[in-house]
Amino acid sequence: MKKLVIVGTVAFDAIETPFGKTDKILGGAATFIGLSASHFNVDSSIVSIVGDDFPQEYLDLLSDKNIDISGIEIVKDGKTFFWSGRYHNDMNTRDTLVTELNTLADFNPVVPHKYKDADVVMLGNLHPMVQMSVLDQMENKPKLVILDTMNFWMDSALDDLHKVIKRVDVITINDEEARQLTGEYSLVVAARKIHAMGPKYVVIKKGEHGALLFHDDNVFYAPALPLEEVYDPTGAGDTFAGGFAGYLANSEDVSFENMKNAVIFGSTLASFCVEKFGTERMQNLSSDEVFKRLQQFKQLTQFEIELT
Amino acid sequence: MKKLVIVGTVAFDAIETPFGKTDKILGGAATFIGLSASHFNVDSSIVSIVGDDFPQEYLDLLSDKNIDISGIEIVKDGKTFFWSGRYHNDMNTRDTLVTELNTLADFNPVVPHKYKDADVVMLGNLHPMVQMSVLDQMENKPKLVILDTMNFWMDSALDDLHKVIKRVDVITINDEEARQLTGEYSLVVAARKIHAMGPKYVVIKKGEHGALLFHDDNVFYAPALPLEEVYDPTGAGDTFAGGFAGYLANSEDVSFENMKNAVIFGSTLASFCVEKFGTERMQNLSSDEVFKRLQQFKQLTQFEIELT
Repeated sequence: MKKLVIVGTVAFDAIETPFGKTDKILGGAATFIGLSASHFNVDSSIVSIVGDDFPQEYLDLLSDKNIDISGIEIVKDGKTFFWSGRYHNDMNTRDTLVTELNTLADFNPVVPHKYKDADVVMLGNLHPMVQMSVLDQMENKPKLVILDTMNFWMDSALDDLHKVIKRVDVITINDEEARQLTGEYSLVVAARKIHAMGPKYVVIKKGEHGALLFHDDNVFYAPALPLEEVYDPTGAGDTFAGGFAGYLANSEDVSFENMKNAVIFGSTLASFCVEKFGTERMQNLSSDEVFKRLQQFKQLTQFEIELT
Repeated sequence: MKKLVIVGTVAFDAIETPFGKTDKILGGAATFIGLSASHFNVDSSIVSIVGDDFPQEYLDLLSDKNIDISGIEIVKDGKTFFWSGRYHNDMNTRDTLVTELNTLADFNPVVPHKYKDADVVMLGNLHPMVQMSVLDQMENKPKLVILDTMNFWMDSALDDLHKVIKRVDVITINDEEARQLTGEYSLVVAARKIHAMGPKYVVIKKGEHGALLFHDDNVFYAPALPLEEVYDPTGAGDTFAGGFAGYLANSEDVSFENMKNAVIFGSTLASFCVEKFGTERMQNLSSDEVFKRLQQFKQLTQFEIELT
């Protein structure tokens, strides 16, 4: 079975949307990535850090999905990273209410020995130097390295971000962040500039407007499934990345044509994530449900014009 | 050859975008619809009104595309409808600088006798009562009636708008207008409410984010082709509608599956419209260029996941 290393936060989230609010619930980029990737026949390991205030049941929840958690450091008397946010009515913008780094402030990721030869590495949103440290621990160059990041690091650690971007094969970034990183409004021009920074593949996430995959002069577009209601967008981008990484790790085919499929799987899994708060929908999502929704994606996007 | 009746403005536009500005140039919804529909083997007739200040060369330009202009009334000593607008940097929003109705204020559309039995009627953006008058002149119910409208009529003539919406098969409307018409933020819910107003098919245009086609519980999504630069969005929606109507009129198949193809053709033609100011790009667009771009659309959207 192919190995996937996932580095990112395992955390507490407290979320407010127009549909309601939650207390502290399970969250974190690596959590969403891992749950999403668990839908593929892949041996995944999460590298992260929590405090001993982090419930054993949350760790068990990950283990039960066959996710290796030996790389999750538990800090005695430490507190787990906590994020709280409130979404506006359009669900595309949000205000951060609280960010408590806690144990994350001194996070030195340690990749479990068994996973130092992983085929795919998914660098979830974290300080670029933490992401770099994971790459440095890999024994041989992974078949595929995927990086997710956000505007916060462009503002606070741009030089470090450029260093790690240079070493990855795929970057996933949202449209506003792509514009900030390149100073270009056109996403086509922005993607070309990001190519020049290193990544051969650029995925630009547009939330409810879907995602674009760029490679040289090729572009592929996957829409978001039109939903009656989006209850909570938290983790949708990470769920997309987890599906993208998990599909590619399992298929062992990192061609552009196959990456199109990975984008569709990522979009399909993300479409479930937003249907309930936090990880609730992803905790018990059946492969049958995923299969049915993939069929919806085909009906949503495939057409029959013959060009001969 | 199938007949297509197009009612809408034939006008002067003056446009400002971040890429430049124009003097009075050829514009108007019916102009863009007609030029776009001329890419299909359809006998189109434009029903509109202009003043005798309207250059013969513009009328010749339409005739040269085999568009019947006998339904364009030329008012002696009259002035042609004039619109001027300035687009913001995002190209998705604009300010109207000037609107001179001129001859359009007293427009009583007269469908040429030869076209009273048209197969398809495209009601371009105009006062709902003018659109209604065209429907009333048709001898027998057309195979397909398509309506385009905008928020202006929701503000100023909502009751009349509802009357004509009830009589059409397809409505094309942009996302913000769909939300205004229904009071729903979710486009899925908005489309269902618009279905209930009459149209069996609802096309929601999202500009650079593409277009959605709704029918009962079916939905199809066509992206906009990602472009390096959009020079002028003016007429893109009408060009989409013209391609949609022209393709369906020619194919004589108004099934949902075939409407998917119509949406793709509409999006393909619209992707050319925005590449230059006004109608410039559409005036000399070859079928070879259209064919090549349809191939790009396939590469942009089609994937190979086998679901068995």
